[in-house]
Amino acid sequence: MERASLFFIQRSSPLEMNQKGSWTRMSSIKIAILGFGTVGQGVYKTIETHQKELESVLGKKVEVAAVLIKNKEKDRGIHPGVLVTDKFEEIIDLNQLDVVVEAIVGNEPAYTYLQRAIQRGCHVITANKEMFASYGTDLKELAAQHDVSIGFEATVAGGVPVIQTIQQLLNINRIKKIEGILNGTSNYILSEMRAKGESFSAALTAAQEKGYAEADPTNDVEGFDAFYKLMILSEIAFGGKPDWERVPREGITAITREQIEKAEKLGLRFKLIASIQLINGEIVGSVRPTLVSKSHPLYHIEGVENSVSIEADIVGRITLQGPGAGMLPTASAVIEDLIHAVLKTGVPGNSFRMQQQTPEDSQVKEKQNWLILNPDDLDHFPLSLSSSAELEGSCLIQADENTVHSLRQENRNASFFEVLGEFMLEERQLVKL
Amino acid sequence: MERASLFFIQRSSPLEMNQKGSWTRMSSIKIAILGFGTVGQGVYKTIETHQKELESVLGKKVEVAAVLIKNKEKDRGIHPGVLVTDKFEEIIDLNQLDVVVEAIVGNEPAYTYLQRAIQRGCHVITANKEMFASYGTDLKELAAQHDVSIGFEATVAGGVPVIQTIQQLLNINRIKKIEGILNGTSNYILSEMRAKGESFSAALTAAQEKGYAEADPTNDVEGFDAFYKLMILSEIAFGGKPDWERVPREGITAITREQIEKAEKLGLRFKLIASIQLINGEIVGSVRPTLVSKSHPLYHIEGVENSVSIEADIVGRITLQGPGAGMLPTASAVIEDLIHAVLKTGVPGNSFRMQQQTPEDSQVKEKQNWLILNPDDLDHFPLSLSSSAELEGSCLIQADENTVHSLRQENRNASFFEVLGEFMLEERQLVKL
Repeated sequence: MERASLFFIQRSSPLEMNQKGSWTRMSSIKIAILGFGTVGQGVYKTIETHQKELESVLGKKVEVAAVLIKNKEKDRGIHPGVLVTDKFEEIIDLNQLDVVVEAIVGNEPAYTYLQRAIQRGCHVITANKEMFASYGTDLKELAAQHDVSIGFEATVAGGVPVIQTIQQLLNINRIKKIEGILNGTSNYILSEMRAKGESFSAALTAAQEKGYAEADPTNDVEGFDAFYKLMILSEIAFGGKPDWERVPREGITAITREQIEKAEKLGLRFKLIASIQLINGEIVGSVRPTLVSKSHPLYHIEGVENSVSIEADIVGRITLQGPGAGMLPTASAVIEDLIHAVLKTGVPGNSFRMQQQTPEDSQVKEKQNWLILNPDDLDHFPLSLSSSAELEGSCLIQADENTVHSLRQENRNASFFEVLGEFMLEERQLVKL
Repeated sequence: MERASLFFIQRSSPLEMNQKGSWTRMSSIKIAILGFGTVGQGVYKTIETHQKELESVLGKKVEVAAVLIKNKEKDRGIHPGVLVTDKFEEIIDLNQLDVVVEAIVGNEPAYTYLQRAIQRGCHVITANKEMFASYGTDLKELAAQHDVSIGFEATVAGGVPVIQTIQQLLNINRIKKIEGILNGTSNYILSEMRAKGESFSAALTAAQEKGYAEADPTNDVEGFDAFYKLMILSEIAFGGKPDWERVPREGITAITREQIEKAEKLGLRFKLIASIQLINGEIVGSVRPTLVSKSHPLYHIEGVENSVSIEADIVGRITLQGPGAGMLPTASAVIEDLIHAVLKTGVPGNSFRMQQQTPEDSQVKEKQNWLILNPDDLDHFPLSLSSSAELEGSCLIQADENTVHSLRQENRNASFFEVLGEFMLEERQLVKL
């Protein structure tokens, strides 16, 4: 919150603004996007759609100056003013280049590109987990030497702010253990196998059809993707990585529907758990199919969601859950890093946001499901839930707050409860009001 | 991560340090704790036990200079060097006072004390949700005028970093809706009523015996506590609060075990949900018992845990879960704010932590539960899970990694899976190796 008041002062004091060094010389912040796959496109679109927010927070326009792309002939709907090239040289030689966002897959040429961007004095942001797991330490040192920042929130769990949360906790907490579901593809497959009694291959095909798995799913289902993310978390949490060779890495390809059924009978679920902890001062990690019981927060994580559970000495256990991949969630993490890089003063405070806040969100609240227990007069509710004796007389309706309010007046003894989340009921009979 | 490199530079550059203004004149950081209940004591203890971490992060010692306490005669195990007084005047008049931590209950005298601390130029940190819900806006403005910071992470969901996460998201995301389980006491009671078929009053008594509920539970079970927290979240997320009179606030006292049973039959759970959202530019909130289905992340939050689910336009839905109260979790949030107040530069980076990292965590990994499916030779496992035909031949053991490793050598066709979380199995037969 102090960052709030601090930011408030900065936004309102030109003098403070002028202390932002090179940034003050810029008319706008010019960024290059390396790679134009899902993440690269998400970043481009988000900058386009959220210009106003960016300018209000940064006090400057953000311009995508260039995009590095494999096939530059293919039309990507990129604005004509943007340099679209397949040659990194053309990008690194731009007159003004402030931030380089790297969203390529694999170690090279990504690592070399980022080294050169840092050496040129650009802030860099990466979503490339394999590269950052391999070269993150070197890149951080290089960035420190050149007094630029390096953001990598997008490398782990997409939009879920895992990196920043761990860094915040580390201010005072000692982290004991991190357990995570870090790969949405394999979690989706395991969820489908359990829910539908499918085989691994059938669930994989379904995942591929839904776009949750790639044609070659090795990286996801063999645990490499989760492993890279785990190594990145290890360095943040414990200041180093274990010897990669000594980290057991098992995928989910050997899990059978029979095993899942047996586990289910015991009240357990298979999850591909990436785990890292300190044992006698040694960093010990593993990525492997693990059985999780109901009492564990990761038991409930289903589908493509990611979740990270952090055990620390003072705060105890904190669990974060959210979209681990996808165009916009990952872009959100990249833009977070972009803003931090430019401001270098933590988050903007809400004392400033409050004045900027434009509650223009024009959504209209859709009707909600309400369960009515013991209505006085069932005639109000022609279709009642007569599925079972206990539910006799109960009723499920779909209505807005006002309708419910008036119904309440007429049903003094009835209890009205809004229902959150998808509500599937086989014998469901829904009254729409 | 740029905050990492930035911090790295600061730690290693005296010049940067000198730009910290008044801080550089201090030999140590002197703080006062107002109120010595659970939170106050937790802060005192944490500062005592984590001196080394604080000094390594802040570059300065943190000293508790004074404690404001109702009954100063009662021995609280406070160090003799600390001023223990029941007179605020004695504290505000101290020669050096840098940070005031307020952990009192109720609006007054807390609000007056914090105003005076801010006017004196102290950074202030509060864990007082009622006071901050009422006067937070005024205090933020006053703090901005006096160029001091005000921290309030501890006012909502204890150790769960809800405030900072929302502020970070707000850099670029527009928040649509926040739904939370913000009161651990009422969630514990509802969980107990469902799990044990208890009445409200029986569950309340149990909560009181466990120390989860106070002698007068009104604040918790009537939804006031959740309401105050919701108002604080509203101001951060939407830059303002709804008219308090127009926010429906219902507690859980009217929920019966019969209603819970009916809901259970429909696959729904009662939760005391605090909700705030923008509808047509208007901030609309409510605190009331709500039915939650399995598909909603708050369905799974049981016991005294708190959880907040945030829907934002770019990142989608992010859910945080953790200890909503308790001495140490809340203290952790206060110390977070303390560190931000002193550094005024966001979180210290791991490039710095890495050099400081002392992996002295000397825990020994306890034995884990492992489920073994289809061992080649059951003689290794005298007690097998013969509870059902399908499980015939399966076995549950408790062993360390090495034991499991050697067992694997002897059971090439068996599948070994570690079990996470409490694992209760009625017909469980556990082999301890």
